[in-house]
Amino acid sequence: MSEVFNFSAGPAVLPAPVLEQAQQELRDWQGSGMSVMEMSHRGSHFMSIAGQAEADLRTLLSVPDDYRVLFLQGGATSQFAMVPMNLLRGRQSADYINTGAWSKKAIAEAGRYCTVNVAATAEASGFTDIPARDTWQTDAGAAYLHYTPNETIGGVEFDWIPDTGDVPLVADMSSTILSRPLDVSRFGLIYAGAQKNIGPAGLTVVIVRDGLLGDMLDGAPTMYNYRLHADAGSMLNTPPTFGWYLAGLVFRWLLGLGGLASIEVINRRKAGRLYEAIDASDFYHSPVAPGCRSLMNVPFTLADSSLDGDFLTVAEAAGLLNLKGHRSVGGMRASIYNAMPEAGVAALVDFMREFERTRG
Amino acid sequence: MSEVFNFSAGPAVLPAPVLEQAQQELRDWQGSGMSVMEMSHRGSHFMSIAGQAEADLRTLLSVPDDYRVLFLQGGATSQFAMVPMNLLRGRQSADYINTGAWSKKAIAEAGRYCTVNVAATAEASGFTDIPARDTWQTDAGAAYLHYTPNETIGGVEFDWIPDTGDVPLVADMSSTILSRPLDVSRFGLIYAGAQKNIGPAGLTVVIVRDGLLGDMLDGAPTMYNYRLHADAGSMLNTPPTFGWYLAGLVFRWLLGLGGLASIEVINRRKAGRLYEAIDASDFYHSPVAPGCRSLMNVPFTLADSSLDGDFLTVAEAAGLLNLKGHRSVGGMRASIYNAMPEAGVAALVDFMREFERTRG
Repeated sequence: MSEVFNFSAGPAVLPAPVLEQAQQELRDWQGSGMSVMEMSHRGSHFMSIAGQAEADLRTLLSVPDDYRVLFLQGGATSQFAMVPMNLLRGRQSADYINTGAWSKKAIAEAGRYCTVNVAATAEASGFTDIPARDTWQTDAGAAYLHYTPNETIGGVEFDWIPDTGDVPLVADMSSTILSRPLDVSRFGLIYAGAQKNIGPAGLTVVIVRDGLLGDMLDGAPTMYNYRLHADAGSMLNTPPTFGWYLAGLVFRWLLGLGGLASIEVINRRKAGRLYEAIDASDFYHSPVAPGCRSLMNVPFTLADSSLDGDFLTVAEAAGLLNLKGHRSVGGMRASIYNAMPEAGVAALVDFMREFERTRG
Repeated sequence: MSEVFNFSAGPAVLPAPVLEQAQQELRDWQGSGMSVMEMSHRGSHFMSIAGQAEADLRTLLSVPDDYRVLFLQGGATSQFAMVPMNLLRGRQSADYINTGAWSKKAIAEAGRYCTVNVAATAEASGFTDIPARDTWQTDAGAAYLHYTPNETIGGVEFDWIPDTGDVPLVADMSSTILSRPLDVSRFGLIYAGAQKNIGPAGLTVVIVRDGLLGDMLDGAPTMYNYRLHADAGSMLNTPPTFGWYLAGLVFRWLLGLGGLASIEVINRRKAGRLYEAIDASDFYHSPVAPGCRSLMNVPFTLADSSLDGDFLTVAEAAGLLNLKGHRSVGGMRASIYNAMPEAGVAALVDFMREFERTRG
């Protein structure tokens, strides 16, 4: 294996010790004679794997007892419909904050089920900033308020949790969950596709306050009903067992590092180093306002965009992979999730300096 | 690793060469430096994996060009809603054949979206037989006719494809797909959860005639729209990449064996050997009518059910795992999917004879 650093926005790099363990026990999980993939989801082996994963996630996030943790399928895109279907509870409208590409997708899908009140939008800034809380036009009768704490494409991240009073707060945490400690009690519902900070694609984690569940939009498919999943322990049908197991290994790895306070220190160090290199140079530029730069997804541009292709080619040859920005915004993007080692960021910064020296 | 044979109904045993390859390249897929789990689904590596898997599945099943092959999430249970949502196309009713537990689940979910005409039911036989085609009370105006070619729990399997004229035929093939050659052109839509004959749980394969797609029930979630998935090459959002890759390895393994005609010979030999052992004894009994016994799921009972617990305990000690029948029917069930080696069936038959000899 040639050493590479994979800056993909997702599916993304996984912790090396997790992949090592998964490889070691791929054909025989702890002497069972079976791969985890071959186990009945209702058998004692998998039930212990599943239960431990949930317990470890609860420990990491200090999930309060009145919240349910669900291991589902379908990605955040399925949640865009599941959230209104489950949380409207007879109300006609919901508040949404528009901070970029993923906010917009959530808004579009919700608009099929209710009146969406866009309480604030970052459109005027080209989605490079976050509207201050005191500018939000919220609706006290909203069923919930939805926002995207980290925009994976735009690289815009909230470093604060909005206060929404009695209106349940709903967050698409796909690209920021587990990157730092979180006060779950501030939220009504949190969801996250696994393929950034949790595990492989095909698993979606939902954390929801139990009291919000029970009502359901007429005509919603049975598989979109959180209450039924919660009551069935996420085994309403066969869950994505291997993804659930890998998520459990990731949770264990995080606990071994000291939990979310420890990973936050590392994440701030990684992001700080990269933003510092960008800001110290006229050759590179960060489009995002300093107060809301993502710790996880770092977009940057070259002052001379005609060098973009060259940058990517030389970076790839140096083992720095998937640095191309999303097709909708161009430029570069370095996704530096929990599993990206500090050495990867150091290698990227060194490469950027050297590229500037030879091409600048 | 102690050798075991895993008769789980699903998630189920996977081919040993597939697991070996997956283990070998788990941390570094073909020199890429990345696990398949870490690859962007839109990158060239994964696109080649995905494309090859689809091509190989098309080869195995001789899928006609005007059929789309989709790699989705959510299991067959999601299909129970997706089928009516996509295929009603303005009609008010659909025909369903009730041959057991999985038929009933499909019927219950469809009944939330349309009038279900149960054109035939095996209830009178206790779901141990299949109603003859000439007894079916079909409706010429039905949007489609849905049936379950193999009932995983009851062990009842069609050895014929119903003729439904111009009414599109829809089949839940979760536990029989790829067990033998299939004339896909006879069907409007086929779906299958992967965790029996395709790959790990969390992947669902749909094969659908393109001309049936386009209309959609109002209010259906975007992720339930086959047309959108088809147009996006099953990448409407991040697909379950690792499951898709493993399915591809399974398809390659089947092609290497000589395709579905070859696996059918093996499957008939395996099932034949097991049913023969059951029928040759008064100690064991098959509840299923001889003309519709499943090649994949073989339920059987002990004449003295007080020995059930003993049978399971001794079998497990002998490395014969997960032989307990579904909780809804009791007794035993041996699932002998494609990946169950002939040696596993031989070991089970030997064990059954020995158990009868000592306890009979």
